[in-house]
Amino acid sequence: MRIAEIHLTPVAIPDKPLLNCKGVHQPYALRTVIEVICDDGTVGLGESYGSTKALEGLRRAAPALIGLDPFHLHELKSRVITALPEGGGINARSAVADHKLTDVVASAFEVPCLDIQGKLLGRPVADLLGGAVRSSVSFSAYLFFKFGAHVGQEQDTWGEVLTPEQMVAEARVMIKAHGFRSLKLKGGVLHPDLEIETMLKLREAFPDHPLRIDPNGGWTVETAIHVARKLESVLEYLEDPVIGTDAMAEVAAATSIPLATNMIVLEFDQIAEVFRKRAVQIVLSDHHYWGGLRASTHLGKLCETLGLGVSMHSNSHLGITLAAMVHVAAATPNLSYDCDTHYPWIGVDVIEGAPFTFSDGALTVPDGPGLGVTLDRDSLAELAALYKQADMKERDDTAYMKQFDPGYERRVPRW
Amino acid sequence: MRIAEIHLTPVAIPDKPLLNCKGVHQPYALRTVIEVICDDGTVGLGESYGSTKALEGLRRAAPALIGLDPFHLHELKSRVITALPEGGGINARSAVADHKLTDVVASAFEVPCLDIQGKLLGRPVADLLGGAVRSSVSFSAYLFFKFGAHVGQEQDTWGEVLTPEQMVAEARVMIKAHGFRSLKLKGGVLHPDLEIETMLKLREAFPDHPLRIDPNGGWTVETAIHVARKLESVLEYLEDPVIGTDAMAEVAAATSIPLATNMIVLEFDQIAEVFRKRAVQIVLSDHHYWGGLRASTHLGKLCETLGLGVSMHSNSHLGITLAAMVHVAAATPNLSYDCDTHYPWIGVDVIEGAPFTFSDGALTVPDGPGLGVTLDRDSLAELAALYKQADMKERDDTAYMKQFDPGYERRVPRW
Repeated sequence: MRIAEIHLTPVAIPDKPLLNCKGVHQPYALRTVIEVICDDGTVGLGESYGSTKALEGLRRAAPALIGLDPFHLHELKSRVITALPEGGGINARSAVADHKLTDVVASAFEVPCLDIQGKLLGRPVADLLGGAVRSSVSFSAYLFFKFGAHVGQEQDTWGEVLTPEQMVAEARVMIKAHGFRSLKLKGGVLHPDLEIETMLKLREAFPDHPLRIDPNGGWTVETAIHVARKLESVLEYLEDPVIGTDAMAEVAAATSIPLATNMIVLEFDQIAEVFRKRAVQIVLSDHHYWGGLRASTHLGKLCETLGLGVSMHSNSHLGITLAAMVHVAAATPNLSYDCDTHYPWIGVDVIEGAPFTFSDGALTVPDGPGLGVTLDRDSLAELAALYKQADMKERDDTAYMKQFDPGYERRVPRW
Repeated sequence: MRIAEIHLTPVAIPDKPLLNCKGVHQPYALRTVIEVICDDGTVGLGESYGSTKALEGLRRAAPALIGLDPFHLHELKSRVITALPEGGGINARSAVADHKLTDVVASAFEVPCLDIQGKLLGRPVADLLGGAVRSSVSFSAYLFFKFGAHVGQEQDTWGEVLTPEQMVAEARVMIKAHGFRSLKLKGGVLHPDLEIETMLKLREAFPDHPLRIDPNGGWTVETAIHVARKLESVLEYLEDPVIGTDAMAEVAAATSIPLATNMIVLEFDQIAEVFRKRAVQIVLSDHHYWGGLRASTHLGKLCETLGLGVSMHSNSHLGITLAAMVHVAAATPNLSYDCDTHYPWIGVDVIEGAPFTFSDGALTVPDGPGLGVTLDRDSLAELAALYKQADMKERDDTAYMKQFDPGYERRVPRW
C-alpha cells in the first residue's frame, strides 16, 4: 500500500476581530486541508496552517511522499527533511510562529497517514496511540478581548469586548453555549491592572471554573511578577507571561503559579534547557508543530517523566484539526488540563454533517474509523473560493491593527 | 475484539556457566512464554522473565485482562496496576533485578497485543511503531568469562574462559559464527587489571570492533576511574561501572568515555535525576521492564531529547523476545549502538522453523504479520517439561557460585 496522490487545498475561514498583544485577528484565518490518497483508494485527511510559508513547504514536500507506505512515519519525516533541506535553518521558521518548517510539514502529513491506518483497521486513531483513556475530552473557553466589527463591516454578534465587565459577559455566553469549565483569557491586550481586574471578576462570576491567562510573552518580568502576585490564588496556570527561557525562569522562581508555554518550548530540542533552568511547569502540546500525533504522545510521556504538566494549544482551526486533537488528547493519560480551542469562534467547517458540538465543554471521542470525519466537498469548495477572494497570504495581526489604530506598533513585551 | 484467553507457560532454557560479579549462571535460565488469544482466534505471543515473582505477577494480572481490547494499551497498564496493588512498592521489585513488577507485567502483555494488532493488519510490529528505519538490526557479541562445565556435568563446547587469551579466543569463535562487530565483555569477574588487559588484548586482536565492558556495578569509584583511564581510547562505552547515581556522576565527571546503564535507570521516574546529575550518557533500553515496545519508543525519543544515547540490554532469552527486540530496535531511529543479546549462548528456541541466524552480526527485521514468529508446540512442551524437572524457581547466581567456591560471597562493589 502506497501513497498515490496528495491534494492540498488552502482555505480561508471567516474569523472575528480578536485581540492579542501583537494586534488583532484579520477577517480570515488561513488553513490548508490535506487529502492523502492511497493506491487502494483509502483517503486520509489532515489540516495545517495556511500561510504561504507553510503551504509552500507542504507543496514542496508532497511529491516526495508519493510512493510512501503510510505506516512508515519515520521515513515520512526523513523524506520531508530531504525535501526541505534548509528546514532546520532560522529562515525556515514558519507557519504562524517560530515553528520549524520540517516539523510542521511532517506533522501535517502524519495525521492523514494515521487516518488511513485507522480506516484500514476499522478503528479510531486513538486506538493507534495506545487507546483512549477517556471517552470525552474537555476544552476550555478561549476568551478574547475584541473589537465589535472588522474594518468596513457590521458589528458581529459578540460585539465589542474591551472591559472586565464585557469579558464576564463573553464568558457567560461561551459557557452557556458550550458548557466549558476552564476559562482562558488571551491577555497582553489591556493594561495589566485591567487584566488582573478581569481575572478577578471572572473568578467572582465563576467561582469554580479553573482560570488561565496568556499574554503571549507581552509582559516584562516585573509586570509578570506583579500580575502573578495579584492572581496567586486565582490561576490554575499562567501561560507565557514573558519571552525567553531565562525570563520565564525568573518569573517561575517568584510565583507558586505553574507557568505554561507554547512559545519557549516548540520542539523537543528545547526541553532540556527549560528543564535544567526550571523555567516551565506545563508544556502546551500541539500536534501541528510537535511532529504529529505520535510525537505528541512522546511529548506526553516526556513531560510525565520530567514532572512537567501537559496542556494543549490551539490556533484558529476547522474540524479535521479538532478531531485529531480529540484523539490524541484521549490517548494522553497525563493531559490533565482542559484543551484550548478556537473552534467556537469559527462558524464554519469542512466536515460532513453537523459541526462538532460541545457538551459540558467536552467532545466525545469519535469512534468511527480513523479520525472519524469526512470531507464535505461543497463546504471545502466554498472556503477554497473564499481563500482566493480573500487575497491574503500571511497572518499579520499587527498590520491589520494599524487599520484600526495607525499609530499602533508591535512591541514584545508591550507592558 | 477482546482478549478471551491467556496462557502462561514457564520454561527452562539450558544455559552455560557464565560469570558475572555476583556469581555464575545456573544450568537453566527461566522464562515465561505468553499466549494471548482473542475471541476471533487471533493469537499474540510474548516472552518474559520466569522467576517466581514475575510468574506470579503475570498469573495474578492475567485474569484482569480477559475482555480487554488488545488496542487499549493504556487500559492494559491500568488493569495491571489495579491487579497488583502493591506493584509500586519496594517489595514488589521483581524479575531478575530491581524492576517494578507492574512495569514487567504490563510489558509482558503489551507485546502479544502488538503481535495481535500486526496480525490483524497483516503488517510487522515495526509498522505499529512508526515503521522500520533499518532493514536489519545489529547486535554485539556478548562475551563472558566462564567455567568449563556446570557442577557435575561435562565440559561444554566453549570450555573454560578465565584469562585474557581465552577471552580473545571466545570472541574469535563468536565473531566467526555470527559476524558480530561490537564486542561487550561482562566484567567485574576478574581483578580489574586483568579485565583491562583483556580489553586491550581484544582491541589488539580486533582493531576495528567497538568495545564495551559491563561489570554490573562491581567496581568502586576509584577502581572505575582507574579502569576508565586505562581504557580511555579503547571503549565506545562503559556500562554500570559503579552502583548509584552519585557514584556514576563521579565516574562520569572523571572520564571522557560515555557511561551506559541498565542498573540505575530502570524506569521513567529515574531519568530526571540522572539527567540533572549528568550521571549517565547512554540508557540501555529493554522492553521487558520499560513498559513494552511503545514505551521503548517513548524512551528513545526521550533520550534523543535529553541528548542521551540509547543502546539495548538483554537477559537470557528465546526467539519471541529476540523478534520483539528487532522490531523495536528497527523502529528506534536514534538507537545508534549494536544491541546486546544472550541468544548465541542459548542453543534452543520455541519458535517454528530455524532459530534466528545472524548475518554480519545482524538480523533482518521479520516482515511477516505481527512479530513474525509462531510457536513450535513440541519445543515449548520440551522446555516446559525441563522447567518442571529443573526444580528451580529463581535465578540465584551467588548461591550457585558457592557450589564451585564455598567461600564465595556476594559483594557489590567487589573490586
